[in-house]
Amino acid sequence: MTARRSCLAVILAAGEGTRMRSSLPKVLHAVGGRPMVGHVLAAARSAGADRIALVIGHGADAVRKAVGALPGETEVFVQEERRGTAHAMLQARAALEHGADDVVVLYGDAPLVRPETLERLRARIADGADLVVLGFEAADPTGYGRLLMDGDRLVAIREEKDASAAERAVRLCNSGILAFRGLHVLPLLDAIGNDNAKGEFYLTDVIGLAAAAGLSVGVEIVDEQEVLGVNDRAQLAACEAAFQARARADAFAAGVTMIAPETVFFAYDTVIGRDVVIEPNVVFGPGVVIESGAVVHAFSHLEGARVAGGATVGPFARLRPGADLGTDAKVGNFVEVKAAKVEAGAKISHLSYIGDARVGAGANIGAGTITCNYDGFLKHHTDIGAGAFIGSNSALVAPVAIGDGALVAAGSTIVEDVPADALAVARGRQAVIPGRSAEIRKRLAALKAERKAAKD
Amino acid sequence: MTARRSCLAVILAAGEGTRMRSSLPKVLHAVGGRPMVGHVLAAARSAGADRIALVIGHGADAVRKAVGALPGETEVFVQEERRGTAHAMLQARAALEHGADDVVVLYGDAPLVRPETLERLRARIADGADLVVLGFEAADPTGYGRLLMDGDRLVAIREEKDASAAERAVRLCNSGILAFRGLHVLPLLDAIGNDNAKGEFYLTDVIGLAAAAGLSVGVEIVDEQEVLGVNDRAQLAACEAAFQARARADAFAAGVTMIAPETVFFAYDTVIGRDVVIEPNVVFGPGVVIESGAVVHAFSHLEGARVAGGATVGPFARLRPGADLGTDAKVGNFVEVKAAKVEAGAKISHLSYIGDARVGAGANIGAGTITCNYDGFLKHHTDIGAGAFIGSNSALVAPVAIGDGALVAAGSTIVEDVPADALAVARGRQAVIPGRSAEIRKRLAALKAERKAAKD
Amino acid sequence: MTARRSCLAVILAAGEGTRMRSSLPKVLHAVGGRPMVGHVLAAARSAGADRIALVIGHGADAVRKAVGALPGETEVFVQEERRGTAHAMLQARAALEHGADDVVVLYGDAPLVRPETLERLRARIADGADLVVLGFEAADPTGYGRLLMDGDRLVAIREEKDASAAERAVRLCNSGILAFRGLHVLPLLDAIGNDNAKGEFYLTDVIGLAAAAGLSVGVEIVDEQEVLGVNDRAQLAACEAAFQARARADAFAAGVTMIAPETVFFAYDTVIGRDVVIEPNVVFGPGVVIESGAVVHAFSHLEGARVAGGATVGPFARLRPGADLGTDAKVGNFVEVKAAKVEAGAKISHLSYIGDARVGAGANIGAGTITCNYDGFLKHHTDIGAGAFIGSNSALVAPVAIGDGALVAAGSTIVEDVPADALAVARGRQAVIPGRSAEIRKRLAALKAERKAAKD
Repeated sequence: MTARRSCLAVILAAGEGTRMRSSLPKVLHAVGGRPMVGHVLAAARSAGADRIALVIGHGADAVRKAVGALPGETEVFVQEERRGTAHAMLQARAALEHGADDVVVLYGDAPLVRPETLERLRARIADGADLVVLGFEAADPTGYGRLLMDGDRLVAIREEKDASAAERAVRLCNSGILAFRGLHVLPLLDAIGNDNAKGEFYLTDVIGLAAAAGLSVGVEIVDEQEVLGVNDRAQLAACEAAFQARARADAFAAGVTMIAPETVFFAYDTVIGRDVVIEPNVVFGPGVVIESGAVVHAFSHLEGARVAGGATVGPFARLRPGADLGTDAKVGNFVEVKAAKVEAGAKISHLSYIGDARVGAGANIGAGTITCNYDGFLKHHTDIGAGAFIGSNSALVAPVAIGDGALVAAGSTIVEDVPADALAVARGRQAVIPGRSAEIRKRLAALKAERKAAKD
Repeated sequence: MTARRSCLAVILAAGEGTRMRSSLPKVLHAVGGRPMVGHVLAAARSAGADRIALVIGHGADAVRKAVGALPGETEVFVQEERRGTAHAMLQARAALEHGADDVVVLYGDAPLVRPETLERLRARIADGADLVVLGFEAADPTGYGRLLMDGDRLVAIREEKDASAAERAVRLCNSGILAFRGLHVLPLLDAIGNDNAKGEFYLTDVIGLAAAAGLSVGVEIVDEQEVLGVNDRAQLAACEAAFQARARADAFAAGVTMIAPETVFFAYDTVIGRDVVIEPNVVFGPGVVIESGAVVHAFSHLEGARVAGGATVGPFARLRPGADLGTDAKVGNFVEVKAAKVEAGAKISHLSYIGDARVGAGANIGAGTITCNYDGFLKHHTDIGAGAFIGSNSALVAPVAIGDGALVAAGSTIVEDVPADALAVARGRQAVIPGRSAEIRKRLAALKAERKAAKD
Repeated sequence: MTARRSCLAVILAAGEGTRMRSSLPKVLHAVGGRPMVGHVLAAARSAGADRIALVIGHGADAVRKAVGALPGETEVFVQEERRGTAHAMLQARAALEHGADDVVVLYGDAPLVRPETLERLRARIADGADLVVLGFEAADPTGYGRLLMDGDRLVAIREEKDASAAERAVRLCNSGILAFRGLHVLPLLDAIGNDNAKGEFYLTDVIGLAAAAGLSVGVEIVDEQEVLGVNDRAQLAACEAAFQARARADAFAAGVTMIAPETVFFAYDTVIGRDVVIEPNVVFGPGVVIESGAVVHAFSHLEGARVAGGATVGPFARLRPGADLGTDAKVGNFVEVKAAKVEAGAKISHLSYIGDARVGAGANIGAGTITCNYDGFLKHHTDIGAGAFIGSNSALVAPVAIGDGALVAAGSTIVEDVPADALAVARGRQAVIPGRSAEIRKRLAALKAERKAAKD
């Protein structure tokens, strides 16, 4: 039913964030690898917002640019002066005048609100409410505005400083998030005055105005963790922790084993299949898909990578964007893979860098293999055929192709293509000088003693 | 006294574990690097069980195989249909009929029970009790069966759904673990009926039957952490956390320093000596022994390895099975050691792979050294003599032996044995072409500009 | 005002520390990378102590040596017999007789006391108090001496075992730390007797003596975390955890982003600038400075290193003492840098060891590059010029210089200097033998089958 109603989301993101002590605008600080404002935009869209108005202020250019890079269209409005939340919202007057059945107000620094929660707010409007505030039971309500109820009806939001002792005992608090029946928004906002100590226009004043106008004003309750706001770095970390707790619980529910979930860090878009095992200390950057039955060993770092079922990663592996591991492939310790397809059953077990490459099915890449993909100006491709065997400590100077079933001798620097099933050797011949090590040792020991004597 | 009594442990491990969402049978999921059922088997044996009957169901073949690989003999019984815990236990009728002084009932998905606790249960039977239930004071008893006492006597186990308000307030709960005087087991089990909603045979019914028969039924109390059961992945992680907390406390008591114990993960059989220092972020797989006075630096991963006193490992080191570090040996950053004896005072400080090898006392292995131990079909051995010096970035192609005090020049690929005290060089001669870098740079810059222009 | 008063700090550090189960004297165990006694010495100096008397006992030689290596002068006294805290303090009689306006008593195993707290104690003396005890509200007071007050006046310290039920309910406890008006110290200490069960001289007896003498005895309150004492390894870890919590809060306040603060470990002297981002799992040893705007990626380990603004470190990087990264420099994965200046914009992205070196501005060090800085006896220097390009998998045998803009071909072992803008190649020429890989494969497969057959 709510799906057919039109919805405008207004996201307030103009705050200065002084307490962040940062050159980066507050709403661009990341949680789960995505700017906070990106989470809010995504939640609004998931909840069916067909238009989004974003009100920015501090660091407007940077925010505008970052938001432009995110998916979906967003109308951006700038609040030039800081004159309160209602004033901020009214900067989006053009969007508000365009009209919508439901208008939802969100905050760029409260990134954890779930789409389902916004849908509940919208459903209340669809069911007849005129204004619905999202509230939460605070573990410690100090500092929050209290929601004063008369039965199911919200009668006022009382700020801490104006609250009586009885009102301070109320633990039901205002998250700031709310939904309007669209037709009431502008009349209510325009009625808000600034007759207060700071001379600002406060959005919370709509409650009193709406109640006075006989409108139906209600409250939806949500868990406190979902409406955490960020004003300083410690709160940013707390918000990240809440995000991670949610992601870990989701992974458990999906049948993922984590030995030490508190040491596994997900990004906002990580996808992990059933029966995946994740050992302690694994960090997922954005864009990772781990398919059912893969294993990620300890101390691994993945970003923009796909890992197929049966494949194993780590310990101490780094998969960078474009790493694509096929079924039963193996990327082992101290190995970096970037922009490379590692086909089924291929093994890169130790101390290697494989970038801009294809490693064919069943190929074995020896320890210490390096694809030399960069000449200082351009990147080049290395192609390693199925079943090829690259001896340890080899350098493959791209562009270069190693044929199917070819063998590169250990310690080789390969600069020309190697045909299928051929052997390539490119290294110095071994010379042995008997007794020379003992001589060198004697000489160096003498030199060291001499230097030490000179020092003393 | 209990030692001379015979003991049969019956381990119930037939549960489906649907909520695990796993293809692996629940009791094979690991805690501390060992399948849960392995912990229970070990606890039973440590507590003096001379016979063990394991009742399995879901995934019987996999469980049978895994249990067969564990130490000790276990009689395995399969419950084909799921008809309740008493029914499960009766699948082991053959073992029960064989008889024992004490019969202890355990669960394959409750892996943390201590042998000492089972010994206390057995001691109670030895002291005259007929049936002893292991109970715990639950922080939150919701969902558990309550133990209803009359003084020291257990009179009933009341399931949550059947409990009065007063009974629900009871926090003493049933762990499910219990011990019988052997002669009573079969008569009691056979008396259990299935006249209940699900038509199943419940082991908890023995309490009422025993009490009605005038038997002495008591309770032993244990900490809740010790009887944690596992039904989903989150509970598996909670169980792992409890296991790790116990292991860390044991290590502290033994005189181990851990800077951040919450980041150190032990296996079930890890042995750590006094005055060992373990830095943050260390993972121990099974089979590790760290002797007194060794240091394990941050970000290290050890499995099947021995580290002698005075030796140092990491940061960023990986010791795999068969790594055996002698006194004062050093394995440094980005180094992997597998199936290799690193003798006293030998140093492998950086970026190396040493596998299937011996590194003689006092030898120095330069950065980037690789033992090429695998030819794609077979593994071969590398022997490095005492006091040898392997120059950086060398590859040692096994089978190969480097003599005592020999020197391998940096960048060499060694394919033949090097005699003691000899120098081996196997690399290309240096050629320098003046000005050529500047030319190449100019050419590549032009090419890059060209490509860019073509793109734009 | 307190600044002009003279101050003697007496640090008691003679305890045996049996429960540590360690060969290392207790006060030398580290917190935040510094021996506990070093923290106490530093706090005393910061609070204006112009003289410090340290009373040691167990492991006196080791403690004397370690303290000698710390900054500042410390008079060391040895308590030969353990006869109580007052007896310990009187070992410093020579220092006490020399006299001071304020005398502050501290403990070598309580390393977290803040200089500000000691200044508050001293200010109380300056304001007229004769004796001020540092107390704390204990979450669980069991085992602590209770501070019995009469208004603002401390009338007694009651040990747990002597306390009435009412006194046991008191949560205000004695930290042991206290400050004297200097002229009272010796008369009070000399008046303490040993008429008690153990026959020891207890410093806490001064309270009663001072009160009886009509002196003004007060209490200053401090957070419990600040006066944590260490008697075993678990308490050492708890103390470390409190230290880390303080360091993390300081970093947040300074404008540092930490995604998972609980996985970042600071040393006592770590300096981190504003807008630095620290990813999960980073360990700082002593002597690290990270300038504003740098990024430290996950799984990095830094010690004695400087990282300039715009520079990035890790993931999986190790910076050892003397690593000095210029603006926008990059040290990437599986890279170790030691005693090396990495100038502005230089990049060492993968799998390299750079030790005893300079890497010129804008130079690019390819994957797998090793500076061979050690010949088994002496360390040598590698100089890499600005804009040089070192091809992957190269070894630079020091002492050696690579000129500005020079190019080293991949896989080279460089033993002689390379002029600016020159190309150096030092590797074998590539030979290809068609079909040989297929032959080898056939032969090895046959050999493997043969060996397997022989085994079976």
